[in-house]
Order: sequence, then structure tokens, then C-alpha cells
Amino acid sequence: MSAEVFFRTHIDGETIDPSRFLARFDEISSFGATGDGGLDRQALSKPDIEAHRTVIDWFRRPGYRINADAVGNIFITRAGTDGTAAPLVTGSHLDSQPTGGRFDGALGVVAAAEVLASLDDRAIATRRPIQLAIWMNEEGCRFSPVTMGSAVFSGSLPSAVAGRAVDREGASFARELDKFFLGIGVKGTTEPLSRPWRYLELHIEQGPILECEHSTIGVVTGVQGTIQYRIDIEGQEAHAGTTPPAMRRDAFKAARTLIDRIESKLEDGDCSTRFTVGRCDIHPSAPNTIAGRTSFTVDLRHPDASTLERHDVLIHKTIQDYAGPCGVTLTKLINTKPVAFDLRLTNAIDAAAERRGLARQHLLSGATHDAARIAGLCPAAMIFVPCRNGLSHCPEEFASETDMIAGVSVLHDVVLAEAQA
Amino acid sequence: MSAEVFFRTHIDGETIDPSRFLARFDEISSFGATGDGGLDRQALSKPDIEAHRTVIDWFRRPGYRINADAVGNIFITRAGTDGTAAPLVTGSHLDSQPTGGRFDGALGVVAAAEVLASLDDRAIATRRPIQLAIWMNEEGCRFSPVTMGSAVFSGSLPSAVAGRAVDREGASFARELDKFFLGIGVKGTTEPLSRPWRYLELHIEQGPILECEHSTIGVVTGVQGTIQYRIDIEGQEAHAGTTPPAMRRDAFKAARTLIDRIESKLEDGDCSTRFTVGRCDIHPSAPNTIAGRTSFTVDLRHPDASTLERHDVLIHKTIQDYAGPCGVTLTKLINTKPVAFDLRLTNAIDAAAERRGLARQHLLSGATHDAARIAGLCPAAMIFVPCRNGLSHCPEEFASETDMIAGVSVLHDVVLAEAQA
Repeated sequence: MSAEVFFRTHIDGETIDPSRFLARFDEISSFGATGDGGLDRQALSKPDIEAHRTVIDWFRRPGYRINADAVGNIFITRAGTDGTAAPLVTGSHLDSQPTGGRFDGALGVVAAAEVLASLDDRAIATRRPIQLAIWMNEEGCRFSPVTMGSAVFSGSLPSAVAGRAVDREGASFARELDKFFLGIGVKGTTEPLSRPWRYLELHIEQGPILECEHSTIGVVTGVQGTIQYRIDIEGQEAHAGTTPPAMRRDAFKAARTLIDRIESKLEDGDCSTRFTVGRCDIHPSAPNTIAGRTSFTVDLRHPDASTLERHDVLIHKTIQDYAGPCGVTLTKLINTKPVAFDLRLTNAIDAAAERRGLARQHLLSGATHDAARIAGLCPAAMIFVPCRNGLSHCPEEFASETDMIAGVSVLHDVVLAEAQA
Repeated sequence: MSAEVFFRTHIDGETIDPSRFLARFDEISSFGATGDGGLDRQALSKPDIEAHRTVIDWFRRPGYRINADAVGNIFITRAGTDGTAAPLVTGSHLDSQPTGGRFDGALGVVAAAEVLASLDDRAIATRRPIQLAIWMNEEGCRFSPVTMGSAVFSGSLPSAVAGRAVDREGASFARELDKFFLGIGVKGTTEPLSRPWRYLELHIEQGPILECEHSTIGVVTGVQGTIQYRIDIEGQEAHAGTTPPAMRRDAFKAARTLIDRIESKLEDGDCSTRFTVGRCDIHPSAPNTIAGRTSFTVDLRHPDASTLERHDVLIHKTIQDYAGPCGVTLTKLINTKPVAFDLRLTNAIDAAAERRGLARQHLLSGATHDAARIAGLCPAAMIFVPCRNGLSHCPEEFASETDMIAGVSVLHDVVLAEAQA
């Protein structure tokens, strides 16, 4: 570590322990490591259970209470001096994409753990309890939808709907969750948990802006809205060699036509639109058989609620207007409106970064986060640190030790101040 | 069965046993049955082994010799009176597509078995041996390429290349073949087998022509040429919400662009072109991750060799001219030229159908077949029977009992005549 960073992490005696943080971050990075720098730690998988258990084990000691709710969110609570005060909550998630990176989610969890440990080191008591939250299944890649745990906690997703989720191999979320509780040695409770006072989350940017602007700290002002659809196409399997074009009901060809139509309509919009087809499953998936069925996903994002609504109408209309030989149905999987974070908290993050002499940048999050769900319950905000080349959800995802420690330090400062409020 | 069919199958005392044939066809249809009328009996799967063993067990009796070659082709030989004469070979395949029909392949194998059994019933001796061939892995959906067994037998595919094929789960053809030999109780031999005198194959049309023309027997004059490619695209996985369009290297988007360009160029050609993308695998296949890799197949067919060559050049050029942000590589999986069947044999089929009073139609095969490979070794021809709505490679695939029995009867007549030549 450079002397400059060492200095910044020790100003005014307010310190975290960079070595402990980095060692713990490496330990968590080992669960689900794929050998190429990346992770496969999908929700409720064996490595996801191991990572959860490891974080929980750090806090199996006096002064801490460990709870889980019915959907598998974990809450590790450091007691405050005021028994009636609502908790300051900070955390993130431990699950990853199937070919994800080490930093997405895990940074915020290990950072929150470091904040708690550093308060213990210095025997600092806070008025409010501080709660480390590990949100269940943020990625939504194994079990749909994304931000499942925080959506259930914030009341926007019924827990019964989450429980019915099934992965591609047919394993149910509810059954895998039972194994999870067994594996971590904590039982899920259906009792109501205390409503957070404030929520803070440290995360990598997952985009290129901070790096381009040479900023260390991103003060996140909000999260763009996301709509996700699944479009199912029913055609007719037939032999690729014999069936004349006019007699074909090729479901994959229909999918390509619909994707093109949707894409070309959205491209007429502004440059803030993010449109992605990340999954497209063809049945039966044989080179010499015309596709009988095809399902694809559309992920659509925009920072402006009314533009997102217009795009939504356009997509519905494109599906309705399809006049080809196949059957088409559209299912909306996710519909989250753009979220604005709490102005007082974002100002507090900005001030903490300034106090530590860190270059900062206000920006909107391109990705959705658990914080966007929790913002429906209480004032919330996020701190971003840069990631190399803006890459995320891939093994190349990378944040420097210096930037991570800067982020943990800013999180520490804001958490401590808010927990005394 | 109608009286008319009964009559036709008994002319001149030359008879097959329709009841035995249908019972045996039903028995074979049970292996891999998916409950919806279709089959999942991919090459070297458990039901494929069971179907092979069942046919072999029908002929474990005096007068028959059972051999397998190194790639798993099975030869069941009924001895002839002339010990030096090359065999008349007839057969087809038992493997199916993952969601295939009961008739594709199995009809030709059970028909050939019925021809042998009916000669035994009547104690008819033939000068030449008659050999029932069951070609290994015609479909090529689990292990690439298609017509693997007949291609190795005819010398157009090295058996070492076949042995290296690996399925999607990582199982190797060579290892699965060992289990197959164990399961059927026949050992593969690397010793040279006798070169066929003539080859005949009965098959469903897998297209709509015979049904449209109200013909019972298709006299197949040849097989259109097929080129199959795999196109691999290397992009960059990244987060769907944060990565601006200009920074994306979306492998699935590149795949859609290439498919569109290829398709629009081929559509300028004549209406005999058959172009299909039946498989497209996206990695990592998550709704909120931009595709880092995509592989798709192109299946291209045409009855005219020079047109097919022009199309091949066009596709190579389209790939070369791709100037997008991803890496693209093209691999040719299959390149089979159009095949013309033997004129003397097609005339013999036509005459046999006429003699039985069956409406017939000369036509080209849209699908490739083992017969197209064996045509490189000896004079070959095929007999088609209609299938409902032209559908094949799907559970709806259907041929009527009447049409199947007509086909077996014509096969019987031509096999018997040729085996005496």
C-alpha cells in the first residue's frame, strides 16, 4: 500500500484495518473461484453457502445478533446504546453471475464487515445498532428475479412468489433455501425485523465513468429503471433439409425478426437507452432441425421513468403487431422504476470523500442494486469505486486495492456518523 | 388393414408379414418414447443401445452372421448360396433427434428386418448374401457430424475423427461406443468388411411432396448437397445496465447481424435453397449480461452443386467482410455434394411399385441420408413413403401403416431381385 493511502485511512484516528480487509476479501473470493480471476457463485449454490457461512462466522461473538428472514437475507447486528433506535444498515450481496467477477457484491459485504470490526477494535459504541445485511440472490441469474431478497424485504415482491422460483435444472428456490439455512447454521424467521433507519451500500461502478474521469469515489445519485421481459415463441419443429421456406414456422427466425424490430425502434430514442438480449434458448437446438420453440429475454434500462414507459409501450406494440407464422407471448419479469437516492446521504458521502482528499464524481447507476429496493423503505445511498475498463459480470472485473480501501474508509466515516444520529 | 393392401402385399406369393412388421415397429418405437408420440433416442444413448440390441436379437439364429465395425455400424448378414458374391445391403439408422419422430430411420431398419424374416418364412435362398445395415449416428445431433457411421464406412470420414467427437456434456464418442458394444453384446472389428454390391434404403420422405401429389411411393433420384458450418463469435461479457452501446462487444448481437446478412444474400438466389440456423448457444446466457461468446450453426442445402459452391463463397465472404467489434471464426462441419442415385436401381423401384399398383413420384431428397454416403461405394437408391404434413424431426412425424407396408413390399421386391443378380 502507498503511504498516501495509509495516511488517508488513518486521519483523525478513524481507521479501518486494510490488511484484515484485503485478507478477508481474498478469503471470500476463493468461494466459487473459476481459476481465471472470476467466480461462479450463483445464489444458493455450495460456494454461495460457504461464503455466507464464512462472513457469519466472523461475527459469532458477544455483542452481535445474527438473524435471517424467510427469503434468506442475513442480518448481523452490532448492538447500539439506545435499545429503541432503528438500525443503520449497510451491506450488499455475495452471489455472482455464472461467469461473474470477485468484486460485484462481495466488496460491499466485506467492507461492511470491516467497518464493524474496526469499531470493535477501537471499542467505539454507537447510539444506533449497525446492521450488516447480506441480501439473498441479487443477480437473479439462477432464480428469477434480480434483487430477490431486497425486493421481498422492502415489500415489492411477495415472498411466496420468490419461493416458487425454479432454476434451469428444475431445483426449486424453496428447497435450495432449506439447504442454505442448514449449511449456514441460521434459521430463517418469518417474524418482522426492524425497519432500517438509513441504508448505505459500497459497490464497484460496473461501468466506465469513474475510470474515465480519474475519480476514486462515485457519489451515486440514483439508479436507472429496468424492465425485463421474457418472450416465448411457439413455432413448428421440422426438418431443415426438406421444409420449403413458405411452410416453415421457424421460432428462432421469428425471434431474430422481433429483436431487430424492437432494437430499431428503440434506437430512434436517446443514447441513454440500454437494450440487451442476454439469453436466447432454442428448442430442440439441433443444426438440422428448424426451431420449434425459442425464448429470449429483453433487458431494457433508462434513467427517465417516462421514456422507459414509452419504450415499454413500443415493445408491447411490436409484439402485438407481429404477423408472422409463430405464436408469441410476452411476460414482464421485472419492472423497477428509476430511483433517486437521499440527498442528505449523498451529500454526507461527498463530504466524507472530500475530507479524505479523494477525487469524487456524482453519477447515476447503470445497474440496479439492492439499495434501489431498500430506498423504498428508508433513505438510502450508494458509494461506487472504479472498476477497470468498466467491465463487470465477467472474470476480467477488477478494482484496485487502493480504490477498495478508499471506498471502505468513506463507508466507515458515513456509517459511524449516521449511527450516532 | 384394408383388403386392397392385403392384396397388394400378397401378389405372386411374394409376401411380407404386415402384422409382424407392425408389431416389431411398435416395439422399436418404445425405446426412447417421450410420451407425446415422439422419441429421444440420440446416438449411443441407453434407448439407442436397447433398440440396437432388440434388432440384433431377432437374428441371433442359424443362417445369420452379426458384425460391427469400429465406428459402431452393425451388419446382419443372411448367407447367400454363392460364397464369393458381394452382399446386397439394405438398412437405415435407429438414432433420433432429441425431439424426433418414430419413423425417421427406424422404418428402414425394421423394413429390412421384415424382408429377411419373410425370405426365411418361405425358405427362399438368394445367390448373394443380404445384409441388414444399421448405420451409427445418422442424426449427428449428439455427436457431430451427421451420417457419421456411413461416412466412415464409405471412407469419406476418418474413423479417428469420429472417435474424437464429444457431446455437450463432455462425453466422448469413443467412450460411449465402448458402452454400446458392451450393451449389444457385439464387438467392433477393425477388419475390412465386404464392399456392398448394391444399397437400398426405405425412409419417410420428411417433406410434403408425396402427400401433396397423392403418391404412395417416392422413387428417389438423388439427394441435395449440404454444407453445415459452425460460426464462433468472441465478444466481451459486460454488465447490461452500465455498458454504453459504443463500448459493447455483444457476441449475440454480432451473431444476429451475421445471420441477417447471410440470409439476405442467399434469398437473392433461387427458391431451392434451404437455409436454417437451428442452434445458437449464448455464453454466459444471463438476462443482464452482454453475451461474451455466441456459437451458431448454419445448415445450407441445394440440389445443384455449383449453386451450393456459390453460396459457400458468399458465406465465407460475409464472415470475412464483418467489420464489427467481435472476433468471428467459421468452421465447416459438413460438406456433402449433391448425389445422383443409380438409374438402373431407381427404374427397378419404379417398376416394382407399378407392379403392385402403387401411385409413385420421382423426387429429390431434401434431407441427407446414409444412402448418399454409400452411393460413393456402390450403386444405391432410396424408396420414400409419405409423412403427414411433411413433418419430421418432431413428435408429430407420422406415416400410415398402409404406406409403410407398401414401402416394405416394394423394398422386398427390389431386394429379392437384386440379391439374385
